[in-house]
Amino acid sequence: MPQTYAYEYYNVTFPQDGIAVVEINRPEALNAFTGDVHGDAASCLIRCTLNALPNFTFQVRNQPAKSGYRGNYSMIVNIGKVFNQLATDSDCRVIILTGAGEKAFTAGLDLKQTSLAGSQKQKDPARTMIADMRPMLMAFQNAVTQAEKCIKPIISVMHGYSFGMAIDLTTATDIRICTSDVKLSVKEVDIGLAADVGSLSRLVKVVGSMSWVKDICCSARIFGAEEALRQGLVSAVYKDKKEALAGALKLAELIASKSPVAVQSTKEILNFSVDHSVEDGLRYTAAWNPGALQTADIPEAIKASLTKTTPRFAKL
Amino acid sequence: MPQTYAYEYYNVTFPQDGIAVVEINRPEALNAFTGDVHGDAASCLIRCTLNALPNFTFQVRNQPAKSGYRGNYSMIVNIGKVFNQLATDSDCRVIILTGAGEKAFTAGLDLKQTSLAGSQKQKDPARTMIADMRPMLMAFQNAVTQAEKCIKPIISVMHGYSFGMAIDLTTATDIRICTSDVKLSVKEVDIGLAADVGSLSRLVKVVGSMSWVKDICCSARIFGAEEALRQGLVSAVYKDKKEALAGALKLAELIASKSPVAVQSTKEILNFSVDHSVEDGLRYTAAWNPGALQTADIPEAIKASLTKTTPRFAKL
Amino acid sequence: MPQTYAYEYYNVTFPQDGIAVVEINRPEALNAFTGDVHGDAASCLIRCTLNALPNFTFQVRNQPAKSGYRGNYSMIVNIGKVFNQLATDSDCRVIILTGAGEKAFTAGLDLKQTSLAGSQKQKDPARTMIADMRPMLMAFQNAVTQAEKCIKPIISVMHGYSFGMAIDLTTATDIRICTSDVKLSVKEVDIGLAADVGSLSRLVKVVGSMSWVKDICCSARIFGAEEALRQGLVSAVYKDKKEALAGALKLAELIASKSPVAVQSTKEILNFSVDHSVEDGLRYTAAWNPGALQTADIPEAIKASLTKTTPRFAKL
Amino acid sequence: MPQTYAYEYYNVTFPQDGIAVVEINRPEALNAFTGDVHGDAASCLIRCTLNALPNFTFQVRNQPAKSGYRGNYSMIVNIGKVFNQLATDSDCRVIILTGAGEKAFTAGLDLKQTSLAGSQKQKDPARTMIADMRPMLMAFQNAVTQAEKCIKPIISVMHGYSFGMAIDLTTATDIRICTSDVKLSVKEVDIGLAADVGSLSRLVKVVGSMSWVKDICCSARIFGAEEALRQGLVSAVYKDKKEALAGALKLAELIASKSPVAVQSTKEILNFSVDHSVEDGLRYTAAWNPGALQTADIPEAIKASLTKTTPRFAKL
Amino acid sequence: MPQTYAYEYYNVTFPQDGIAVVEINRPEALNAFTGDVHGDAASCLIRCTLNALPNFTFQVRNQPAKSGYRGNYSMIVNIGKVFNQLATDSDCRVIILTGAGEKAFTAGLDLKQTSLAGSQKQKDPARTMIADMRPMLMAFQNAVTQAEKCIKPIISVMHGYSFGMAIDLTTATDIRICTSDVKLSVKEVDIGLAADVGSLSRLVKVVGSMSWVKDICCSARIFGAEEALRQGLVSAVYKDKKEALAGALKLAELIASKSPVAVQSTKEILNFSVDHSVEDGLRYTAAWNPGALQTADIPEAIKASLTKTTPRFAKL
Amino acid sequence: MPQTYAYEYYNVTFPQDGIAVVEINRPEALNAFTGDVHGDAASCLIRCTLNALPNFTFQVRNQPAKSGYRGNYSMIVNIGKVFNQLATDSDCRVIILTGAGEKAFTAGLDLKQTSLAGSQKQKDPARTMIADMRPMLMAFQNAVTQAEKCIKPIISVMHGYSFGMAIDLTTATDIRICTSDVKLSVKEVDIGLAADVGSLSRLVKVVGSMSWVKDICCSARIFGAEEALRQGLVSAVYKDKKEALAGALKLAELIASKSPVAVQSTKEILNFSVDHSVEDGLRYTAAWNPGALQTADIPEAIKASLTKTTPRFAKL
Repeated sequence: MPQTYAYEYYNVTFPQDGIAVVEINRPEALNAFTGDVHGDAASCLIRCTLNALPNFTFQVRNQPAKSGYRGNYSMIVNIGKVFNQLATDSDCRVIILTGAGEKAFTAGLDLKQTSLAGSQKQKDPARTMIADMRPMLMAFQNAVTQAEKCIKPIISVMHGYSFGMAIDLTTATDIRICTSDVKLSVKEVDIGLAADVGSLSRLVKVVGSMSWVKDICCSARIFGAEEALRQGLVSAVYKDKKEALAGALKLAELIASKSPVAVQSTKEILNFSVDHSVEDGLRYTAAWNPGALQTADIPEAIKASLTKTTPRFAKL
Repeated sequence: MPQTYAYEYYNVTFPQDGIAVVEINRPEALNAFTGDVHGDAASCLIRCTLNALPNFTFQVRNQPAKSGYRGNYSMIVNIGKVFNQLATDSDCRVIILTGAGEKAFTAGLDLKQTSLAGSQKQKDPARTMIADMRPMLMAFQNAVTQAEKCIKPIISVMHGYSFGMAIDLTTATDIRICTSDVKLSVKEVDIGLAADVGSLSRLVKVVGSMSWVKDICCSARIFGAEEALRQGLVSAVYKDKKEALAGALKLAELIASKSPVAVQSTKEILNFSVDHSVEDGLRYTAAWNPGALQTADIPEAIKASLTKTTPRFAKL
Repeated sequence: MPQTYAYEYYNVTFPQDGIAVVEINRPEALNAFTGDVHGDAASCLIRCTLNALPNFTFQVRNQPAKSGYRGNYSMIVNIGKVFNQLATDSDCRVIILTGAGEKAFTAGLDLKQTSLAGSQKQKDPARTMIADMRPMLMAFQNAVTQAEKCIKPIISVMHGYSFGMAIDLTTATDIRICTSDVKLSVKEVDIGLAADVGSLSRLVKVVGSMSWVKDICCSARIFGAEEALRQGLVSAVYKDKKEALAGALKLAELIASKSPVAVQSTKEILNFSVDHSVEDGLRYTAAWNPGALQTADIPEAIKASLTKTTPRFAKL
Repeated sequence: MPQTYAYEYYNVTFPQDGIAVVEINRPEALNAFTGDVHGDAASCLIRCTLNALPNFTFQVRNQPAKSGYRGNYSMIVNIGKVFNQLATDSDCRVIILTGAGEKAFTAGLDLKQTSLAGSQKQKDPARTMIADMRPMLMAFQNAVTQAEKCIKPIISVMHGYSFGMAIDLTTATDIRICTSDVKLSVKEVDIGLAADVGSLSRLVKVVGSMSWVKDICCSARIFGAEEALRQGLVSAVYKDKKEALAGALKLAELIASKSPVAVQSTKEILNFSVDHSVEDGLRYTAAWNPGALQTADIPEAIKASLTKTTPRFAKL
Repeated sequence: MPQTYAYEYYNVTFPQDGIAVVEINRPEALNAFTGDVHGDAASCLIRCTLNALPNFTFQVRNQPAKSGYRGNYSMIVNIGKVFNQLATDSDCRVIILTGAGEKAFTAGLDLKQTSLAGSQKQKDPARTMIADMRPMLMAFQNAVTQAEKCIKPIISVMHGYSFGMAIDLTTATDIRICTSDVKLSVKEVDIGLAADVGSLSRLVKVVGSMSWVKDICCSARIFGAEEALRQGLVSAVYKDKKEALAGALKLAELIASKSPVAVQSTKEILNFSVDHSVEDGLRYTAAWNPGALQTADIPEAIKASLTKTTPRFAKL
Repeated sequence: MPQTYAYEYYNVTFPQDGIAVVEINRPEALNAFTGDVHGDAASCLIRCTLNALPNFTFQVRNQPAKSGYRGNYSMIVNIGKVFNQLATDSDCRVIILTGAGEKAFTAGLDLKQTSLAGSQKQKDPARTMIADMRPMLMAFQNAVTQAEKCIKPIISVMHGYSFGMAIDLTTATDIRICTSDVKLSVKEVDIGLAADVGSLSRLVKVVGSMSWVKDICCSARIFGAEEALRQGLVSAVYKDKKEALAGALKLAELIASKSPVAVQSTKEILNFSVDHSVEDGLRYTAAWNPGALQTADIPEAIKASLTKTTPRFAKL
């Protein structure tokens, strides 16, 4: 029986067998990740990052605060839960991540900034650091890291505004493609902070040129598709969102047609290897694969190949 | 007295002073790495990977099974032995790795797949994992790793089909160049397994874009010279095999003309550094070089430079 | 009260608020880093690396030997001191590193080579290694590493001859740009040694293609701006030195206009991350940022954004 | 308002200001960690480990299966939740972990072993590995790791049977003490598996002698208090459970009287340091402490000391 | 069919089912590891280390030099081969390592020292370092490391002189026990060199007190059984060799009675964990165990336990 | 010509050939490390740590403030300089570190605590963190780390009060011994902070029991010689300071009689190994020793041994 996915701000659909599409769904606010919004129409952070947008009007949904963390960051926390659920959904083999609407993949974090820097002045700085800031930050990091830990490949499709959290989130996914009009930025220094939800720790691993990484991270300048492609941040550029999604779907289809044992093992070993020495990477592979090699997918793949038929791999 | 190199499936020649050319020599099977072939004309894996080739006919040599490992993987094991021997051959300063024939550098592994997934079903999965699969896998990894451990630089020249083991092997060498018509693929997911002889652990270190690495490793799609160059997998592309070999020879000649103390120290320190922090890289250099700096090659290089003559460096 | 910078061979100026320009100032010798020169007009190493230059005449300053290290390497050691002083100078937010004159950023090390390989033959090789070579090498490494440890971003502008130490030094800085006529080379193997002041350990981290890194390090061949840009060694190329400096100044100005808390935190976290796993990078960020997030720069940035004014960030 | 703790199988009490006592509460089954027990009076694993006990009768509570993981491991998962909640409960400064009843701290895992090795024989071994075993194992590991991640010090008090999970769990806590009659064992090889919930990865860090670690892990032999003390596994031995709890309380009281900023920073830095180089440990400390040093606890501690009064530190 | 073991200087016997005893068998020279001995009755190193022995007479076997390495170190190299063969011998579950005769486990390396420091004075120090010393050293290290890589537990029984290589070798094994009259020493500084076959890199991992490690390594002083036990270098002390062997046999018997899947997995995970962070150790375990958990040994162990019979585990 | 050592607060003497004794010399204040003391008789920190001492009277020297760091920490910084100078003094082979007077090795840091936590309340917490606290902390860490980096072995002799900095400093040295009446404490949590000058990062490496380390670090309790010996923090205990110094001298004499090439190589390889995997430790050794093995000390050692004379090793 198929699993159901009911998350405010996220649509999860299965356009094709084995392929899940996760859509960030808050287009009225450029898919910004909201936090602690109590009915007031505008939070400050989103205004900052979108300062350049003429006549943009926020249409924030009425969202009552929930408990859990100090403050309410359920939209951010939920993206981790979505990936977690897909990780154990055997109907899902590949995931596409996209943003609703035409204007933005996501414009970034949309926190009430007072919760970050406003009223805690009277508090002990060390207590603010240990009891407030760090747990919140780790909750954000943890949500984003679920994309990396999810053993199924995730293809990110970026279009329009793709600021801040857009980079945090997509660098934790596996394959990045974008539209020709994408506007990319590691936006954080513009509001006075170092990116701390993953962009800095992951950018140095997913692209080759440190000179470029430091340029974009220290200057927060906006760059486009061509530059992202040349630097290897994305591996393909498409004309517009429609074509980019079609391209992602085609790649997802190709990957979904392979043995899921092989594909998921590949993601896990690559993720391990990027953070370890070659020696350790090989040793980890030699721990992982001797179990995985006992799969029925190998004879199935071979038989299909010899008989020129399409192999059929069981769900995983 | 020059060493002799007699390995089935490998030709080792010295076209020029100090330059060894290692040729994978099984062109009748697209230089595929054979394992456990008992006179039957076709092993299954090679058929799979070459499924697209119209009218290709195998002409497998008659090779009696030998003992050693469980099964017989001497062709794979021997590539490690070749590099080991060259490592201690003072007549060799630089190595070029190429494949015989016009069609392929190597089409990959050519194992009787039954040995991988066929008959062990009745066996305890844990015993298969620990006693059969893991030692075989580690033997394969170990053979390939000898290219990395060989202290002399190795230039790989890829042409035609360069699938699977081609990537495993050349990512363990130092410099990769190719022909314009090369067909490259991390082929393993196509037959139901994650690449486990090194491609996954080394690709993340030798190119810059993780998005691209995950794309090619999860999809097993075939890509060409231009893409390989743009992504940094190869550092030069030549029109055809003849020109590529000429280019490799010219580069090898240049490197062979330098102090072998300097060149070999450079390879070792680079290999260490890619797997360690900058701090550790510097510390290792400060352990290595104080011995190496006492070489007579430095005054020789300086004297030659000042007198505009060609320096002559002793063998190493 | 502004700090003063009085270092032989280095000019430190502040062309604009918050921006320091460090100029290597030994143009009479192509800005080569001198060591142990006792009034003789020519040291040997520089002659070697510049062998190809027609009619070049050295005009070495009269510099009496000083104590400190065995030998006198004060020019090299001082570059570290310059960065150290700037690190604690609150008037400095961004640093530009350039070389005086039209011909070279720096042609590299300019040591009396006899001190490296000449007279120690009668000495115990192990003692030479431990007591002479290693401490000297570590002193050089330490000087260069101060560029990395300096918490303020450093933009290197390379023009003309940029050999040896030019690569050692600029790979320890953050952003590299160059002129279209730059001549780049990891020159060390040409004089019989492996680069040991950082190039080998840092190149593997700052660019993406290992094939290319090994090519240039083993061959010592000279390459130009286009190749450096394509490989990601530099992130921008300008027509000539004047335009490159203007470009650097513009980028420096942009960075200097941001919160220094944000910018310096960004550099530190990126430097940590490149040498550690993603997991460790995130953990370090979660140790660092909870203190840094308590800055007044965040509300200042937000207020300025909402009121469309220019934010004013206090010195750091 | 004080938090409430309602977890089946765990009692959480606050006998003293700032000190939480977590009691594993399933004494009818020697505090074994249950999994997937459907009303049958005996699960097999617990029988195995307790085979030597004469006339022991299980009195398993009636516990309906719940969803969540494949199977129901809520008792194991909940220990992680308990530590998580205490981590953010500002009334808690130190935690004591103990087991209910006189007979055991915990006798270990109490899983229906068929879920581990029974019926999956007809399943693809690779799918069993990736989709069943690994997620279950990682859920167990994750629960135990929360003890390590909880920023407040945890003192474990072991008495009676302390097998398997007892070692997994307490090696993830900070300080271990025990009674003189404790029976300790890394029990897992006795039922055919390597300990995989943390004992192997943590024992090598928490005691000094690898010879002893390998002895007890490969032989599963039972050892006592004196041996545990001599090897450093525990840091104190008390006559019986009552005295051990009193000793733990006294130590907890001492720690709870210190600045919580200082104590929690100390745990976090020690945990980081044990897994990293000294260099990295120092760097992490230099990222963490500059924020923590701004605490009001330092002047409070000093003032109290000078005036010979008791300092009062705010909650954290 | 049982394998045969024919190695000069090593006796391999199977006193009991599943237990191999490897005896270093060169008692006429205190089981010293010989190298390059051409019929002359005395090599110098052994004389040095045994200088204190009154009236000791060497009775060196007549051993013709063989090719392979530069020089002939077959005795050292062969110890690696012995462990390699045992690793794949399914009749072997546990290994005991001992030395023949009453006087010594092994007195250490017994090289013709001239090959180390004698005649190479006229040679380039860098070439000696790279082409002679380093390959020899790595061959020695590699031989010793096979004890660590052998997936079956090895129990070392040290008695009498246990100098130099005795520490190198036994620290690479798993469990160390000794006789009450053992004479232990990290002897290398006494002959002018730092221990380089593993003692320094492994001692810091196998015992707890760095103060003690540095004391014995810098002073080369001889220490006895009680000190070794207190510091955790050995985990048990027996009256004499006979009792120590009996004790080792009893422990080996206990281990051999357990599931070999469980025991070998335990050794591999412990070895990985000691060199990695807890986080990495857990991740490696979660890659390894999901394959190993599918073993038939688990139901066998459980069934045997419930029926109070002895479990019978298949060979591995 | 012998070097001279003139450091306020440190006496450096050479009681014997090759042996330097460094005495912390501020007995009037229990050898506490002073900072920023402007003639006022009492700084606060020292009062705190010594609160329990009846009738203790400070006799602080009149020390004018010097520039350098923000504040004046020259006593701390100078201990690093002392070790640095000894590192390059070829007359020094072994170092003994002790404290003047009968009462204390050192009572710890003696900073005007207001400089830590007092007046910066009005400052931006992030600026205080990055510009004030972190550089000061790193300067302290750096001074202490020089003991570790000094390539000559350092024996610490602790007596009387040995609090705080005593642990920071001696854990960075090589061998620790103490008197029977020593009072040891990781004192920092008592004044509201986590030890940040090295104790936490180094204690986890120099002793075996993490349970004990966390006990003493979280509780700041005072412990004595017997406990320190049992836990491996010290490797010998002597009756009183006089005997302890005699014991240290005897051990130093023994070490100084060995080849300095061997001894210094041993320290460096041990220090590298404790922070790296066994694999990396072996690789570093194989980089270091091939240079060091070319020492004349090896034939000298052998010759002396064979002729039963005392070897004479040249200075290093």
